[in-house]
Amino acid sequence: MPRIAFDWGMLEELREEVCKANLLLVSEGLVRLTWGNVSGIDRDSGLFVIKPSGVAYDKLTPESLVVVDLEGRVVEGDFRPSSDTATHAVLYREFEKIGGVTHTHSVHATMFSQAGVELPCQGTTHADHFYGTVPVVRELTPEEVAEAYEENTGLAIAETFREKGIDPLEMPACFQKFHAPFTWGKSATDSVTNSVALEVCAEMGLGTWRLQAEANGIPDYILDKHYLRKHGAGAYYGQK
Amino acid sequence: MPRIAFDWGMLEELREEVCKANLLLVSEGLVRLTWGNVSGIDRDSGLFVIKPSGVAYDKLTPESLVVVDLEGRVVEGDFRPSSDTATHAVLYREFEKIGGVTHTHSVHATMFSQAGVELPCQGTTHADHFYGTVPVVRELTPEEVAEAYEENTGLAIAETFREKGIDPLEMPACFQKFHAPFTWGKSATDSVTNSVALEVCAEMGLGTWRLQAEANGIPDYILDKHYLRKHGAGAYYGQK
Amino acid sequence: MPRIAFDWGMLEELREEVCKANLLLVSEGLVRLTWGNVSGIDRDSGLFVIKPSGVAYDKLTPESLVVVDLEGRVVEGDFRPSSDTATHAVLYREFEKIGGVTHTHSVHATMFSQAGVELPCQGTTHADHFYGTVPVVRELTPEEVAEAYEENTGLAIAETFREKGIDPLEMPACFQKFHAPFTWGKSATDSVTNSVALEVCAEMGLGTWRLQAEANGIPDYILDKHYLRKHGAGAYYGQK
Amino acid sequence: MPRIAFDWGMLEELREEVCKANLLLVSEGLVRLTWGNVSGIDRDSGLFVIKPSGVAYDKLTPESLVVVDLEGRVVEGDFRPSSDTATHAVLYREFEKIGGVTHTHSVHATMFSQAGVELPCQGTTHADHFYGTVPVVRELTPEEVAEAYEENTGLAIAETFREKGIDPLEMPACFQKFHAPFTWGKSATDSVTNSVALEVCAEMGLGTWRLQAEANGIPDYILDKHYLRKHGAGAYYGQK
Repeated sequence: MPRIAFDWGMLEELREEVCKANLLLVSEGLVRLTWGNVSGIDRDSGLFVIKPSGVAYDKLTPESLVVVDLEGRVVEGDFRPSSDTATHAVLYREFEKIGGVTHTHSVHATMFSQAGVELPCQGTTHADHFYGTVPVVRELTPEEVAEAYEENTGLAIAETFREKGIDPLEMPACFQKFHAPFTWGKSATDSVTNSVALEVCAEMGLGTWRLQAEANGIPDYILDKHYLRKHGAGAYYGQK
Repeated sequence: MPRIAFDWGMLEELREEVCKANLLLVSEGLVRLTWGNVSGIDRDSGLFVIKPSGVAYDKLTPESLVVVDLEGRVVEGDFRPSSDTATHAVLYREFEKIGGVTHTHSVHATMFSQAGVELPCQGTTHADHFYGTVPVVRELTPEEVAEAYEENTGLAIAETFREKGIDPLEMPACFQKFHAPFTWGKSATDSVTNSVALEVCAEMGLGTWRLQAEANGIPDYILDKHYLRKHGAGAYYGQK
Repeated sequence: MPRIAFDWGMLEELREEVCKANLLLVSEGLVRLTWGNVSGIDRDSGLFVIKPSGVAYDKLTPESLVVVDLEGRVVEGDFRPSSDTATHAVLYREFEKIGGVTHTHSVHATMFSQAGVELPCQGTTHADHFYGTVPVVRELTPEEVAEAYEENTGLAIAETFREKGIDPLEMPACFQKFHAPFTWGKSATDSVTNSVALEVCAEMGLGTWRLQAEANGIPDYILDKHYLRKHGAGAYYGQK
Repeated sequence: MPRIAFDWGMLEELREEVCKANLLLVSEGLVRLTWGNVSGIDRDSGLFVIKPSGVAYDKLTPESLVVVDLEGRVVEGDFRPSSDTATHAVLYREFEKIGGVTHTHSVHATMFSQAGVELPCQGTTHADHFYGTVPVVRELTPEEVAEAYEENTGLAIAETFREKGIDPLEMPACFQKFHAPFTWGKSATDSVTNSVALEVCAEMGLGTWRLQAEANGIPDYILDKHYLRKHGAGAYYGQK
């Protein structure tokens, strides 16, 4: 495994943030056992920091995280990186403005993945985070699975966004068919925030349809208002 | 932003109560991330205290809250007030006897909002807090959204109660279509209590309909009994 | 209010147990706000100890509990007893072998009450605690509500068990129509255990029917086996 | 009760692990009250360690656990062993490579047991732990219940796996009809991990079917990939 020079001071901070972001998965109830991982990237060096594979969250420290390059090769770290590392690497290569990636098997979002059902924007909770319908990414073919499963998972996600003309910054989430959700964001922490929002919106979506089977989303002008008051040029949500 | 004189001692107490009431949202499981806000009013000065926008609950202190007048203008505070401040202001202007307002995206109540489905009184848990069917408030028009979204949200709530002839003191809750619930009460704390009751009744309502699709509410004489033993002139629930 | 002599030492222990049993409602997730109460009786003196009305659980102490006689009259205590005290009193009079009573608005059991749907024994979790179908108790008439609501609630429960020939020791639970569950047991603590079991069985029942709408209960010989290995003459569950 | 010589040092470690594994049931939310038990076996001595019957989890210590032989006879311990001990004993005899057994009444898995519905592999969460459809084990006959209920429960499980040609190491779980799930694994801890996975997959399965009633499982090549990357000869999940 090649070892290259990198800005240790900068990655130290990133390691701290990515470690905290991984622990957020636990406190936000998004993971059981070791079913989830968060990474964050340093765009200057092109290196990202990710959870080690199969390590329990209560054993996680900034030092135990693994530093990986954009080809998914380990650059620094005593542990094997998450088995989903190649997927993260593709997402960083394909979605050039994102700073963090989260993968969980959170219960309600995974139901949508397993069912292969898209989640339309049913209300403003959704509109505050996702600008439109959360898409389903197709399952891989037998060849894609056999060849490079994790890498091809990332490529299928990128393909879906490209073919549907969806901006990954406006829609930082998807349901991978038969698998589970992936989210991303400006940073590792932001990608976890989007995972929380996705899980809650998925739970709400199930109940909304139980009450009203015809519910297929809010009017565009309300979606625009909520998404843009938080993410648009004239955003006025939160502090300056 | 104009700064006016106000009774600091009195508002100090109000800040304490409103801060605690906001933290109750977390301990009662009504909010995720920063999706909720509570305010409380001092009717003598016509000023109310509200959560700052987008600030994490674990960072909330009485000092960080924002004091606002009935037009929604900041009177004191270092932070921007909640983006829903204008809605709170309208509710205080329109519902003159209320002392506190709570807005959350609590999961089950939000399902009713997203589905646009009213919640009839299915049992005494509901009757103990809400005197009849919890109404849905219509979504705003494109013009209302474009012009003054948050203020018009409050006006639409007031319009619904006026048109349906509902007393906001007897029905301290509504589901805003495509959005989420608003509740109010005698005080900030009381408005949170009503949010808890609404969330639980919404969850129970979903299950009640799953068991019995025809369930449309309890007889009026039981509603009267429960509501009035707690809120009527001869109330005998709780301590004197 | 008459004050009579009673064995303070004995009731001190009972106060301790009833206080702990009330707090179990919180730790077991059976109550929100102040929606629940537990009592325990001393059969020798014919006095029972019950939660004060509307007092928050985190303020509850053995001293704050109220001692009441079998007519529901306060014998000792600085607070008003639970507004449901008369119901407890009737249950102690009618079901002479029970030692404790619990009333909650636990979510899933309350769904069954609101829907007016009985819960058949769907599995051994149920069979371990309830010997057969958990019955629904009819709603009160307008006259019964107007005259003595809480007392008549207890009488309606006793009437149901008498008319259906159900032994209250074998079926320590019921769903009061439009209201919520009542459970009882050998002691205050045991009545809370039955509330936990009822809530879980109600939740499981909902899901069982979703998977299998025809599911209407287990064979009698399995019900007998499970109920009797725990509660029968030759019980071998637990320690001697 | 015969007392035989055994390696106390070795069983001390096993007692520690089995005690921790039982407490995991609580922290993972798989049990209420005393509804669950975990055991772990020492294959050299043919003895296994199991939870005492009806003892509260917060009273559990390594010393309070019971050592039992493969006929279910107590070898060491002051308490009665779990009432399900004979079932554990049969599973250890029939499934010779397993090291631990867990029995719970976890809510969603029990719904499948009560409904008698199998759980097909709906996604990769399932595929990571269970290689195919989780089977239902038939209810016992009246004769089997009368004769040796707990032992015959274990025999019915073994019969199902034998008749269906299922390898218990690849499918470490089943739903016992009208009762609840049993899981097993390489060790006591591993059997609890499988209980967690089963409970979550059961919950996800319910929601997946609500979204997509036709959902009947993932393609075999995805099942193979996920199961084998974690459990196959070339497994690359986790640390070496």
